[in-house]
Amino acid sequence: MSANPSPSTPPNQVFIGTFIHSRALDELEYLHNTAVFVEGATGTIIAIERDCDHTRTLDETFNRLGWSAAECKIYDTTSPTRSNNTSSTSIQNESGSSLPTQPPPPPPPPVRFFFPGFIDTHIHASQYPNAGIFGKSTLLDWLNTYTFPLEASLGRDHAKARRVYARCVGRTLAHGTTCAAYFATVDVAATNLLVDLCLARGQRALVGRVCMDEPSTCPPWYRDEDAAQGLARTRECVAHARRADPAGKLVRPIVTPRFAPSCTAQSMRALGDLAREERLPVQTHVSENRGEIELVSDLFPAEAGGGRGYAGVYDAFGLLTEQTILAHAVHLSEGEAKLLADRGTKVSHCPCSNSAITSGAARVRWLLEQGVDIGLGTDVSGGYSPSVLDAARQAALVSRHVAMGGDEKAKLSVEEVLHLATRGGARCVGLEGVVGGFEVGMQWDAQLVALGGVGEDGEGTEGNVDVFGWESWEEMVAKWLFNGDDRNTTKVWVKGRLVHERRS
Amino acid sequence: MSANPSPSTPPNQVFIGTFIHSRALDELEYLHNTAVFVEGATGTIIAIERDCDHTRTLDETFNRLGWSAAECKIYDTTSPTRSNNTSSTSIQNESGSSLPTQPPPPPPPPVRFFFPGFIDTHIHASQYPNAGIFGKSTLLDWLNTYTFPLEASLGRDHAKARRVYARCVGRTLAHGTTCAAYFATVDVAATNLLVDLCLARGQRALVGRVCMDEPSTCPPWYRDEDAAQGLARTRECVAHARRADPAGKLVRPIVTPRFAPSCTAQSMRALGDLAREERLPVQTHVSENRGEIELVSDLFPAEAGGGRGYAGVYDAFGLLTEQTILAHAVHLSEGEAKLLADRGTKVSHCPCSNSAITSGAARVRWLLEQGVDIGLGTDVSGGYSPSVLDAARQAALVSRHVAMGGDEKAKLSVEEVLHLATRGGARCVGLEGVVGGFEVGMQWDAQLVALGGVGEDGEGTEGNVDVFGWESWEEMVAKWLFNGDDRNTTKVWVKGRLVHERRS
Repeated sequence: MSANPSPSTPPNQVFIGTFIHSRALDELEYLHNTAVFVEGATGTIIAIERDCDHTRTLDETFNRLGWSAAECKIYDTTSPTRSNNTSSTSIQNESGSSLPTQPPPPPPPPVRFFFPGFIDTHIHASQYPNAGIFGKSTLLDWLNTYTFPLEASLGRDHAKARRVYARCVGRTLAHGTTCAAYFATVDVAATNLLVDLCLARGQRALVGRVCMDEPSTCPPWYRDEDAAQGLARTRECVAHARRADPAGKLVRPIVTPRFAPSCTAQSMRALGDLAREERLPVQTHVSENRGEIELVSDLFPAEAGGGRGYAGVYDAFGLLTEQTILAHAVHLSEGEAKLLADRGTKVSHCPCSNSAITSGAARVRWLLEQGVDIGLGTDVSGGYSPSVLDAARQAALVSRHVAMGGDEKAKLSVEEVLHLATRGGARCVGLEGVVGGFEVGMQWDAQLVALGGVGEDGEGTEGNVDVFGWESWEEMVAKWLFNGDDRNTTKVWVKGRLVHERRS
Repeated sequence: MSANPSPSTPPNQVFIGTFIHSRALDELEYLHNTAVFVEGATGTIIAIERDCDHTRTLDETFNRLGWSAAECKIYDTTSPTRSNNTSSTSIQNESGSSLPTQPPPPPPPPVRFFFPGFIDTHIHASQYPNAGIFGKSTLLDWLNTYTFPLEASLGRDHAKARRVYARCVGRTLAHGTTCAAYFATVDVAATNLLVDLCLARGQRALVGRVCMDEPSTCPPWYRDEDAAQGLARTRECVAHARRADPAGKLVRPIVTPRFAPSCTAQSMRALGDLAREERLPVQTHVSENRGEIELVSDLFPAEAGGGRGYAGVYDAFGLLTEQTILAHAVHLSEGEAKLLADRGTKVSHCPCSNSAITSGAARVRWLLEQGVDIGLGTDVSGGYSPSVLDAARQAALVSRHVAMGGDEKAKLSVEEVLHLATRGGARCVGLEGVVGGFEVGMQWDAQLVALGGVGEDGEGTEGNVDVFGWESWEEMVAKWLFNGDDRNTTKVWVKGRLVHERRS
């Protein structure tokens, strides 16, 4: 579990080993025997030496950078380490010296590599305790049965909010999520608490207070009274986040109308204006469920009419920008997809959620071909898992269900879903070229992945990925995608700071 | 990981706590404050005392059974235990005594319950090293690209076979699989090795040597030369399994034609005769993939014609019996489903596999309504995970994809998929009323599940299931289904013997 590392500024660091990251939608790059130099003060990658002889390259690069090796922290993952689970046993003989008991040879050491931290482009931190609880519901009844009561309770009980948010941030870090776009709740103080927790734990985040003021769809015990109150509360949260992290280096506020059916036209217009005036990102939901789409048509006949659809409603209120993340986009029309591409609006694909609450199977390949940028979202708790690795796995599986409908090319490969989990997510949260890969000038937001080896006797190490030793790197990454979990994510860094370390 | 407990006969045992098992397809029964008495010599449940006062009931039942409490092993899960991860810290003061450092209160103890062991009705032990490796392939190219080369290698290298099979049996036990229907390979010696390993580790199993002799579809380097050789080799494996476990109390042989496209008519007829003469169970595949179905029509025009279809081919050769398990059954016609129901033939639903290699979405509700008995299969390595809990989760999700097609009632509930994983599986392997539930006269094939608690500070215990304390039992079981893994399966018993215990 998390070791809660201290928040002090780290020294300059050098990471040595194998680095795997996405170079294009369908291509992972494997950098072996490579050293990555990370500046402590900024968390920025300032040099990458490939195919290096460690000693020579380190010395040369230290000289060039003017760094002192002695003051630098060096993580060399190429020196074999043994798992704690696999130490051989020995017994004491009568003279007190140790005699081996001829144990079976221990499993080979784990295979280790660095991978960019995952980016969760859509997660409701406030719903974390409901992960896995959804019954046979679909969106609209799920909201009323499971979701609104839990979210409302966090506004009444801030100790509960702290407990829930702390667990959610700790869990997502443990799953390798270095950046998350969070929905909090309607409550101002609880939303601000989530900002503070992300900063304290060192997780990069966009945090949004949920705006919902439409009396016909929101319960009286869980909504803003009107658009004016919603706007004022949102401004409070924006101000808090900007006080807490003035340059927005780690945590930024995000304008968060829940979704069109929950918001009055006045509220959406005010939030669109706020986003434009304050250059704020926006997040909301679109076209998740057929009942929801009909409701939007009924509530906003003018804005949705003429083929403009659900996406057109947001556009009418100035909410479709290059900085907007729309979750789901399962049932978009061609016209709506074109509108998103024109506006540069991003989509968060949430496959766990879409299957769990029977929303539909999003056509990711088709959206990509329309020119829409896509990342992955866990969508806890419509989605049951806070792990982006789980979301990537399900994205691959759901794409095969789309392919079963006849579109063979809909299938997403291992490389593609891991692209969406990193580079794709970075584009969604406005951090393209900043996080999501290993390049000079990018931030060190990364995870160290370890895959367990299987010994000659069939015994092995902890975690569900088994490496027998004959696999290619591509096959090992596929094994990680399909059987990996937080046990394989042994360390996590954000901006160069170690923010999670598994206890062995 | 597995502690490899010794194979000695256990003493009489009493298990005390909460027991959850399936009572009907859509109903889990929750037995709280209950004691289950298990006879050591036979592993049979011989008494169940509900809603008991421990001391009184134990004494009364001990008297009635003629047991001595002192000679009995008692597992009382109602006494709270703390996770090793949550001990509070202390520091030494100068006088050497210990002073508390006011740590946060530890997380609450895990919630524990007994659940029947899982039954995996379809798994290829020989393919275990390929779990997660399938690219964008579908069935027929997947067999040639990934599967046949690996299976063949185990026949050439029995040390490799031992390593692979030992890992597979250890892993499935760790996931709570107390009974598995295994496909091995064509090789006799390696198949016999798998029998020996299941017996040594104490896993209940059906083990089948794979029969494949059709020259036009099987590679020359991996097949039986002809039907006669295939039959002789199968008889060798049947004899070995019967020598190793004469009464078939733990491990039984199973006749295993790979699937119709791999087998000549002569071979299938001989195997059908063998199954009838020796009263042996049968396992094979049916109607997984559209290309495969066409191939079967081409290869067996007489048997498949007249609407008899793929299932009709097996029927023509006497391979559809009450003891037959057919994996997949994704694209069955109504006539084929009726044939299966008439014959009492069972279906192993393999959702992970069907999605991964884009076979299709099996209509489980429809098959159940046709009167077909269904269990769950991991189908490693068409399926990527050796965990039946994963298979149950994906069964719920895939059923929602079937529902998206318009059949709302296709959705499978938490209760239903856990029924398939236990009672349904028991019917498939011919052990209805013997395993899969907690009733007097049934075998103690069980797992002890522990779900972690979350503390007031948001810290918690190991494993991905978080219990906050306000959840109902139904909600906790749903959380286990959707986020649980082998970390939650803390102990596993088969026939009363402890066969797996997690190291804490």
